[in-house]
Amino acid sequence: MRLICTTAVLFIRYDQLRRNFSQFQKYWTTCNMIINENSMEASVGLLTSEPESNYVHHIALFTALLCACIVIGHLLEESRWMNESITALAIGLGTGCVILLTSGGKSSHILEFKQEFFFIYLLPPIIFNAGFQVKKKHFFENFTTITSFGAIGTLISFSIISFDSNIVSVQLLDEDMINELAEVYLENLGRALGAIFSATDSVCTLQVLNQEETPLLYSLVFGEGVVNDATSVVLFNAITKFDLSDMNSLIALKFAGKFFSLFVLSTLLGILVGLLCSYIIRTLYFGRNSTDREVSLMILMAYLSYVLAEVFGLSGILTVFFCGIVMSHYAWHNVTINSQVTTKHAFATMSFIAEIFIFMYVGMDALDVEKWNFVNGSPKKAFSASAVLLGLIMVGRACFVFPLSIISNLTTKPTSNRIEFKQQVTVWWAGLMRGAVSVALAYKKFTGSDEQPMQPANALLITSTIIIVLFSTVVFGLLTKHIINFLFPQSSHVDHTQPTSPKSIMMPLLRHGHDAEAETGDNESLPTTTNLQMLFSNPTNTIHHYWRKFDDAFMRPVFGGRGFISYVTGTRELALT
Amino acid sequence: MRLICTTAVLFIRYDQLRRNFSQFQKYWTTCNMIINENSMEASVGLLTSEPESNYVHHIALFTALLCACIVIGHLLEESRWMNESITALAIGLGTGCVILLTSGGKSSHILEFKQEFFFIYLLPPIIFNAGFQVKKKHFFENFTTITSFGAIGTLISFSIISFDSNIVSVQLLDEDMINELAEVYLENLGRALGAIFSATDSVCTLQVLNQEETPLLYSLVFGEGVVNDATSVVLFNAITKFDLSDMNSLIALKFAGKFFSLFVLSTLLGILVGLLCSYIIRTLYFGRNSTDREVSLMILMAYLSYVLAEVFGLSGILTVFFCGIVMSHYAWHNVTINSQVTTKHAFATMSFIAEIFIFMYVGMDALDVEKWNFVNGSPKKAFSASAVLLGLIMVGRACFVFPLSIISNLTTKPTSNRIEFKQQVTVWWAGLMRGAVSVALAYKKFTGSDEQPMQPANALLITSTIIIVLFSTVVFGLLTKHIINFLFPQSSHVDHTQPTSPKSIMMPLLRHGHDAEAETGDNESLPTTTNLQMLFSNPTNTIHHYWRKFDDAFMRPVFGGRGFISYVTGTRELALT
Repeated sequence: MRLICTTAVLFIRYDQLRRNFSQFQKYWTTCNMIINENSMEASVGLLTSEPESNYVHHIALFTALLCACIVIGHLLEESRWMNESITALAIGLGTGCVILLTSGGKSSHILEFKQEFFFIYLLPPIIFNAGFQVKKKHFFENFTTITSFGAIGTLISFSIISFDSNIVSVQLLDEDMINELAEVYLENLGRALGAIFSATDSVCTLQVLNQEETPLLYSLVFGEGVVNDATSVVLFNAITKFDLSDMNSLIALKFAGKFFSLFVLSTLLGILVGLLCSYIIRTLYFGRNSTDREVSLMILMAYLSYVLAEVFGLSGILTVFFCGIVMSHYAWHNVTINSQVTTKHAFATMSFIAEIFIFMYVGMDALDVEKWNFVNGSPKKAFSASAVLLGLIMVGRACFVFPLSIISNLTTKPTSNRIEFKQQVTVWWAGLMRGAVSVALAYKKFTGSDEQPMQPANALLITSTIIIVLFSTVVFGLLTKHIINFLFPQSSHVDHTQPTSPKSIMMPLLRHGHDAEAETGDNESLPTTTNLQMLFSNPTNTIHHYWRKFDDAFMRPVFGGRGFISYVTGTRELALT
Repeated sequence: MRLICTTAVLFIRYDQLRRNFSQFQKYWTTCNMIINENSMEASVGLLTSEPESNYVHHIALFTALLCACIVIGHLLEESRWMNESITALAIGLGTGCVILLTSGGKSSHILEFKQEFFFIYLLPPIIFNAGFQVKKKHFFENFTTITSFGAIGTLISFSIISFDSNIVSVQLLDEDMINELAEVYLENLGRALGAIFSATDSVCTLQVLNQEETPLLYSLVFGEGVVNDATSVVLFNAITKFDLSDMNSLIALKFAGKFFSLFVLSTLLGILVGLLCSYIIRTLYFGRNSTDREVSLMILMAYLSYVLAEVFGLSGILTVFFCGIVMSHYAWHNVTINSQVTTKHAFATMSFIAEIFIFMYVGMDALDVEKWNFVNGSPKKAFSASAVLLGLIMVGRACFVFPLSIISNLTTKPTSNRIEFKQQVTVWWAGLMRGAVSVALAYKKFTGSDEQPMQPANALLITSTIIIVLFSTVVFGLLTKHIINFLFPQSSHVDHTQPTSPKSIMMPLLRHGHDAEAETGDNESLPTTTNLQMLFSNPTNTIHHYWRKFDDAFMRPVFGGRGFISYVTGTRELALT
């Protein structure tokens, strides 16, 4: 009861604050006009700085909502139709409605964040945790497929969306709108849309697919999402730097070179930081029982890898993902058993909180009146634009998933890793979701352009993005579980549907879903017992074999890892069950 | 090498930014004058909002420094003279120097934070962890002593410091300075100083004293610090609301009532949130193995208790401390074994990172030129003022530690909990340190006064505060370990120096230093076997006995706790060693 009263009081206060703030905003805008260009970017990012006491109120409300999300999400877990991200979205939308009503239609936010808040604080823990917990065997076995999906696939999708949306957008926008826009801007519009909507949302994938149940699909879709990020960074740079209208082979080559170097450099940076962390922990802390320091160092260095990548203009997502992989391969084995349990769950927890946070914020953000006011006269436009874009996303994705899967199946690899048609459909479907990443990119692109302030066309595109995100997350997200159950009916587990297929060399390793990578130490002798022909027909396996030799001979003695730590043999399994 | 280059580039960019910012600040100030009072507070808190790319640079550098702190702090651990907080201070000072030189004497900060950043984000994890890990037996046994130290002691210290500093400050300040100040302001000055410098720094205490080695001292000094915070909140409110100059019995009574209700309400809120969390986890999650959700919920609800307390104008520190105690007593036993390990170490890690962060920031902050520019002509003044204040702090503390200890010893209690003279000296000494809390309070008080902008007198007091913080942390912090070793030479462990004293009833409980509270379940029958006289001569023990009965009969069946969970009996000890 008291809480309700306080909440009511808080809303009233919030309303007062908004009014003061709107007055304040006028002066703020005047200020911004005067100050020079360098500060310009700051003013775009900055939204509001509220008095301390109100700030605390908002944080309290937001924290309470997050708690509610976890509890309600758990209560609804039994339901076939819900998951935590949809719960968070729904709660966000509900809260947004309440705030909208109480504030007299002025705002739907509790807290307003700069978009960098998302990229700097919320995304890194999610991606790092994904790298830390990913089944390395699955990921590296399908490495070529994943890379081709992420790189070539994204390019195909980008071309299709940007080409078509260029045509469509001309028909959709009013003549007034088009006249307002500079010609160059209009040309870039399609490309920007292509880049935004060819960015798969890794966060959504993590929520919908289950690594334990469908490991192959998970590694394909999620891995694609990670590589996709690197491609997106290159694409974004390309849009601004290169003049793509006169595309020739030289520019294409430059582009490919740029992508390749970005990919390699990002990966190397992640590996480097991960190895450094492993080395430090191995030399300094080993056997000293300083759990807190070990965990702190792992968290801080993982974060460092992300921000360093951002500083150097690389793909932070790719870097922190590989940093996570390296840390789980080396550093994780150097720390005390308590640290092992703690890191495993603390990283997952951080990622979990960040995910809920994002979805709830997207839910609230969907009702932001300022954006909707711009498209006041043309809500139809926004919906038809989103429908068209959604169609383009689906076509664009179909254009690369099926051809690339067939190519991937034709190349020699273990039969178990063939992508069946059913799986192709699932990969296509699961990658259709667009989430917080798309929203953040859309804000970046459509509110932050220096040469022109917010225009109706921009507002239209932002609202369309939000509609697409809401629709795809809720509808596609709800249906995914059912599609997987429908396509793989026996036990709904891909791994379990395949015991009839001929056992590959990898099968003994794959069978142990829980900690497949860790098991390889014991099965090390396996590849050498098979005949040479098998090794040649199985290049991935050969590479893996030599990698293991190299790893055991040079890497593990220096950086630690399973088998080089003696005191955690018997007890670990117990603590990690 | 690349890093160095980037750092250099970053410094240059930072310099450019500062210039733009100073221009920007002018307009900002103009804006602030126009907008109404409500937004006034916002402008004080806000310091700078920088372009995104620079922001990332600064975060990267700060993260790298934090990593360096942990590694270097560990390397220096062998040294008798160092600890991590001093390392962090030193690195902060060093970095501040470098930035000061490269930015041409304009700034010493990498990131500038609003002061609420400290109170909203950094302090809660530290205090919560302290409550979560505190030895509940020790804390509650000495509850009366701790409360009297925290409440009465702080009042005594406050009166002495504010009375004397009123006299001293008149002599120290120039006539010009005094003429500039309003008379009311001058009267309040002493009181503000009293409140600031009677706030013990719990964070410093945690760094210097060791719970395992000196449990009694730890619980006394740290517990005092927590209660002290509640007193500080009341004192601050009193300074602004009551007119203390005509102090009479009615006002004193009001004051006491206010303190009492604040203390009780804050404690109740913490207990309530803690119980709610335990109840939710027990009913929803028990036996479901959803570790990440459990940990998320515990973290979020603990944080919720803190912000709720701040919203209601209570003492957030007291609330989150008791929330931590309740959670470790009930909720911790309801979760899976993995969650138990994870929470134990994740909370400690969060607290550890926050502590280093604070000390490093204080180190950088010490060189902030803007403040020093104000006292340009009178650096001597700043040093003499700090010397005088430091003297007052020592006298003020001595005036309540020794008398209150003697009173506490006179009341009947277990002999083992008598505070010997040596221990009194240590308690006195360990509480002398002033840290980030004092700095944050000083900023709040001396930069945020609405009726007048930053004045030379204010700047003098801020710089004095910084000098005191640096001096007390470094010098007192360095000496504390040696003083403890000198005073308790046998094994330097207080607990071990007392086996000769007659064994009290509590001794069997106290002996198990590691998880004393958890052991009580087995020893429950102990108090009933002793004679009635013992129980009467030992009120704390009697209370404890009835509390246990109540706990077992009503609380644990509802909220869970040790003994009511069956599946964690054998395995937990292993995982927690």
